[in-house]
Amino acid sequence: MPETSFSSVGIDFGGTSVKLGVCRAGELLCTDEPIPTADFHGPHALINEMAARVANLRVTFPDIAAIGVGVPGLVDFDRGFVHELTNVPGWKHVPLKTLLSDKSGLPVVVENDANAMAWAEFRYGAARGLRNVVALTLGTGIGGGLILNGQMYRGSQDSAGEIGQMSIDFDGVPGHYGNLGALEKYTGNLQIAQHAVEAYAQIGVHKDLSDCTPKAIAEAAAAGDEIARGVWGEIADWLGTALSSIAWLLNPDAFVIGGGVAQAGDLIFDPLKRKVQSMVSTVVWEHLKIVPARFSNEAGIIGNAALADELVPS
Amino acid sequence: MPETSFSSVGIDFGGTSVKLGVCRAGELLCTDEPIPTADFHGPHALINEMAARVANLRVTFPDIAAIGVGVPGLVDFDRGFVHELTNVPGWKHVPLKTLLSDKSGLPVVVENDANAMAWAEFRYGAARGLRNVVALTLGTGIGGGLILNGQMYRGSQDSAGEIGQMSIDFDGVPGHYGNLGALEKYTGNLQIAQHAVEAYAQIGVHKDLSDCTPKAIAEAAAAGDEIARGVWGEIADWLGTALSSIAWLLNPDAFVIGGGVAQAGDLIFDPLKRKVQSMVSTVVWEHLKIVPARFSNEAGIIGNAALADELVPS
Repeated sequence: MPETSFSSVGIDFGGTSVKLGVCRAGELLCTDEPIPTADFHGPHALINEMAARVANLRVTFPDIAAIGVGVPGLVDFDRGFVHELTNVPGWKHVPLKTLLSDKSGLPVVVENDANAMAWAEFRYGAARGLRNVVALTLGTGIGGGLILNGQMYRGSQDSAGEIGQMSIDFDGVPGHYGNLGALEKYTGNLQIAQHAVEAYAQIGVHKDLSDCTPKAIAEAAAAGDEIARGVWGEIADWLGTALSSIAWLLNPDAFVIGGGVAQAGDLIFDPLKRKVQSMVSTVVWEHLKIVPARFSNEAGIIGNAALADELVPS
Repeated sequence: MPETSFSSVGIDFGGTSVKLGVCRAGELLCTDEPIPTADFHGPHALINEMAARVANLRVTFPDIAAIGVGVPGLVDFDRGFVHELTNVPGWKHVPLKTLLSDKSGLPVVVENDANAMAWAEFRYGAARGLRNVVALTLGTGIGGGLILNGQMYRGSQDSAGEIGQMSIDFDGVPGHYGNLGALEKYTGNLQIAQHAVEAYAQIGVHKDLSDCTPKAIAEAAAAGDEIARGVWGEIADWLGTALSSIAWLLNPDAFVIGGGVAQAGDLIFDPLKRKVQSMVSTVVWEHLKIVPARFSNEAGIIGNAALADELVPS
């Protein structure tokens, strides 16, 4: 039974495409054709297109009551203001909430994409019913979103959850900000591939980076390849170190892990769980879940629609 | 002008002594003679003594309306139940809130001591008026308390804030739980002293551990001792790495630092601030405060009394 009597539009605004869908109480009712981001020059043209798409969707779904937009960058949540999207030209200081609300005539919420993913898992996914949740997406970088005391936790400048920038080695590899030992310099997709290429090279096997996607390494490991297994073991050590630190600090109910690496399944989750268990107390460990995300490509749409639901009086 | 029209008793329950005081709106009105913890065998005798002390204090302060007790160990906050105090014999599975409330006839709140210190700084100290605060106490170990979204954050098993167990090196020194790179194995008082002894030995100077308290090292550094300055620089690197990771994860308004090391003043705060600034983004850094705690020995009494205030309807 749906918890709401209305629908919301979720918009997952990415550097390549803008994906739209209609949801009711976490159920994806339909997805619209993606909008190629580069086809629209500047915020106004793209926001007009978003509003036009929403207007079209309302013909079929007249009960659409709100819009949630997730963006790949830093937002001011209260104002729905986009500070800057480094991967989308022209998106700097954009009052997205005001503009899209004016165009569409609907209430709008604007959120960081990692937070929206976390909200999707908290409201309708792998972390449903839990109170303290740390969600991570493993990809080129590592994004994170936090649900603490049953609320989205955004931090003082809406910048919380940057798990990929946390240090796992005070004397380690510098990250994007010069931050030594930044986790994503160890477990980002490119770093995993580089690490695998080097590991194969040590036994005289030549591989290209393109041979060593997380998926390829995972499949090789599943097929019994010892080098691939070793690579996964090290990823688990690095990622597990960061998760352990977060577990000591936040004592959460769950880590929910999405993105490419997470698709490796038990192969990555089993060594990761062993590592975290070896690094935390029994009290912290015994109730802790480390689980794959329920939603993958549609997490953004569902999470943003779920955030939009919160705008509508019940 | 006091914000409350009543007083509360704060009890700071330590392994050596139990300190009591009466506070009104964060102001310490009086402290009672400390109770030597070891003089009372078992929880019942000590709880009886606490209740007798409170009864006496009520003669002078008839407006005492609630009691807050901070304990050095893991508690179940909702039940006011003490799981175990490793440094106090006989304290295992003690329903402290129920027992002390029955004896005293007053509402009681039981909290972990690091959380109480954080609450003191948040309500009345260095972090007053802020929303997201990470408080640390540097000593033998490193305790921490978190105020997030303006609320105490305790975690799922009331075990959050264990900053001393966070890893700063995935391949580092094992901590108490076998956790590699545990911060307090680098910046605990004993580890600082050991590190200083070794640094002096390298230039042929013999020092004992007892010569190398944080205070002594701080004073030597302030007096221009290059070895002592080098030791502080490394402490700042280690501690700063952990704070940077917390800053990326939680984007707090402030770190409030108490305990012996913090008494080193600018000498430790300046290199620590430089380290954190070098490790985080401008957005995270520009509003971030890294400040010494306002309260020292009396933080426990004030924090627990302030937590007790919350029990009284306004």
